[in-house]
Amino acid sequence: MDRREFVKNTAVGIAGLTILPSGLLFAKNADKVKLGYIGVGLRGRNHISEGLLRDDVEIVAICDIQESSLKYCREQFVKAKKKLPTEYTGGLDAYKKLLARKDIDGVIIATPWQFHKEQAIDAMRAGKYVGCEVIAGISVEDHWDILKVHEETKMPYMTLENVCYRRDVMAVLNMVRQNLFGELVHCEGGYQHDLRGILFNDGKSFYGKGGEFGPNTMGESQWRTQWNIERDGDIYPTHGAGPVMHYLDINAGNRFTNLVSFSSKSVGLNHYIDKVSPGNKNAKIKFKNGDVTTTMINCANGETVTLSHDVHLPRPYSLGFRVQGTDGIWMDVANSIYIEGKSEKEDV
Amino acid sequence: MDRREFVKNTAVGIAGLTILPSGLLFAKNADKVKLGYIGVGLRGRNHISEGLLRDDVEIVAICDIQESSLKYCREQFVKAKKKLPTEYTGGLDAYKKLLARKDIDGVIIATPWQFHKEQAIDAMRAGKYVGCEVIAGISVEDHWDILKVHEETKMPYMTLENVCYRRDVMAVLNMVRQNLFGELVHCEGGYQHDLRGILFNDGKSFYGKGGEFGPNTMGESQWRTQWNIERDGDIYPTHGAGPVMHYLDINAGNRFTNLVSFSSKSVGLNHYIDKVSPGNKNAKIKFKNGDVTTTMINCANGETVTLSHDVHLPRPYSLGFRVQGTDGIWMDVANSIYIEGKSEKEDV
Repeated sequence: MDRREFVKNTAVGIAGLTILPSGLLFAKNADKVKLGYIGVGLRGRNHISEGLLRDDVEIVAICDIQESSLKYCREQFVKAKKKLPTEYTGGLDAYKKLLARKDIDGVIIATPWQFHKEQAIDAMRAGKYVGCEVIAGISVEDHWDILKVHEETKMPYMTLENVCYRRDVMAVLNMVRQNLFGELVHCEGGYQHDLRGILFNDGKSFYGKGGEFGPNTMGESQWRTQWNIERDGDIYPTHGAGPVMHYLDINAGNRFTNLVSFSSKSVGLNHYIDKVSPGNKNAKIKFKNGDVTTTMINCANGETVTLSHDVHLPRPYSLGFRVQGTDGIWMDVANSIYIEGKSEKEDV
Repeated sequence: MDRREFVKNTAVGIAGLTILPSGLLFAKNADKVKLGYIGVGLRGRNHISEGLLRDDVEIVAICDIQESSLKYCREQFVKAKKKLPTEYTGGLDAYKKLLARKDIDGVIIATPWQFHKEQAIDAMRAGKYVGCEVIAGISVEDHWDILKVHEETKMPYMTLENVCYRRDVMAVLNMVRQNLFGELVHCEGGYQHDLRGILFNDGKSFYGKGGEFGPNTMGESQWRTQWNIERDGDIYPTHGAGPVMHYLDINAGNRFTNLVSFSSKSVGLNHYIDKVSPGNKNAKIKFKNGDVTTTMINCANGETVTLSHDVHLPRPYSLGFRVQGTDGIWMDVANSIYIEGKSEKEDV
């Protein structure tokens, strides 16, 4: 992606945002975009890897509260033979010092969900371009707040929904725009990914061992698991919704009008903990979030959308896309049978 | 299927019906089951074919208002070297004369949907075992009426939902009962079948030519198409619901509690007519039924179910089954891309 592309994508990143005035286009630095990274855990360090590959990007600052993550990044810079970035750490407010720097053009935010909104808003107010990991905020109000600050500051905000840029997803978007599927009628998508090995671990390995979660564990289990205790619903909709919104021109001539969600019972995580960590008291936790949440959405132009959130059960990875029109259909689904312990699982 | 199996299946055919008293078990005929067939159009004549293959079944009577269908059946009997059945015809009430015969043990009903309920009720009242094609009735009240008459007459009534007896569907039922999938959490199914070539024809061929429907056309377009003009919803749910009800023990320790359906816009049939029959005024018809109807259902035991009705658009045949539990998953889905006129379609 060259700078022009980045800017173009940024401008359309959240459909419905105003096109940014051209005077704002990375004017500060002629040759390189200077970026700061807020949150360099498992996700953020992937963004670092990508940034380090580019000659037109300079990573000048990183921010995290965990030394292990900062250390991992340092090693990445050394391996890439790039100048080490300034580190900001020491508390949840450390990112504000990063934002205070005048030389930073934009920030990449990859912190736990609950911090996204405040960090993104502070970044826009500090005059930084924002690329923020999904999800943008926790409540509907959070999303409105982000939009209002974008309109107030005119700073671009892009949702980093990577699935929108999967090659097959983009190929299908091209096919949609060339009208190969005819008039679109119905779309499906979701997040259907066995996350059990990520939601729980033993505090020593990132994946697949143990039934613990919370501050003393590794990676996303430190914070993500708690959301499955506290909320029932599709708590991570954009892997499915992002591509579908592009296909259906949502907030670009079309819009979601109303929705209904049904959640199944929640037994998958308890079953998992009991299996990997027999006798673990966490197997008795009442997880509010149902194992499978299905959401139906109506669109202003008459299309229907079905989204699925399905991360508590053994299954092959499959986002379950469907794009269906009067002339054709795309279905990206794992046609499969999978029995845990008896089948091979293709994971992505 | 031997007689014992038929009786067993009949007894559990509609989950929730009482087990029939053993004294009723085909007592009238020692060696052969004597059957009458009400409705021998495209569907009914398939049932005739099956019956003609059996030595323990004697087809003694057939009923239809269309000479072409009766003629087709006669030829089937001649080819099979079986004794020709008595024919009942001449009007919508002709089936009552068939039911009046004392020697008939059971009837197979394969008429248009709107006749099922009355014919099934009359048959039970006449002391006949009933095998009735889906759908059982049009309204919820129809279904209660059938149940009440079953309880009043004690005559068995079986819904002829053939998909329940697909080999893979039965294999998965066996796996469910052996607990291979663990505790079930979510199921899906549907009727996803491009019916456009059946819903419209030119009055001369059964399939794929022309944009006409109604009395002067061939096969199901004579009556089925009208339902897509008059009703919006999942008007044919049992291909998906039947197997799923078996998997989830619906009305056998579990039950559906509430549901929500969303229908997409309806443009597929208009688009089709315009393509196969340019200028045809039928392309202007307002079809009430959305092209894709999705239904979410909650179960008393906490499982969720998603059903799909999708018969107006080009697509490979796929009933889209999913059975998902704490230990595994079955997904029977066509993972595919299909563009009409550019792809090969596997149809069943």
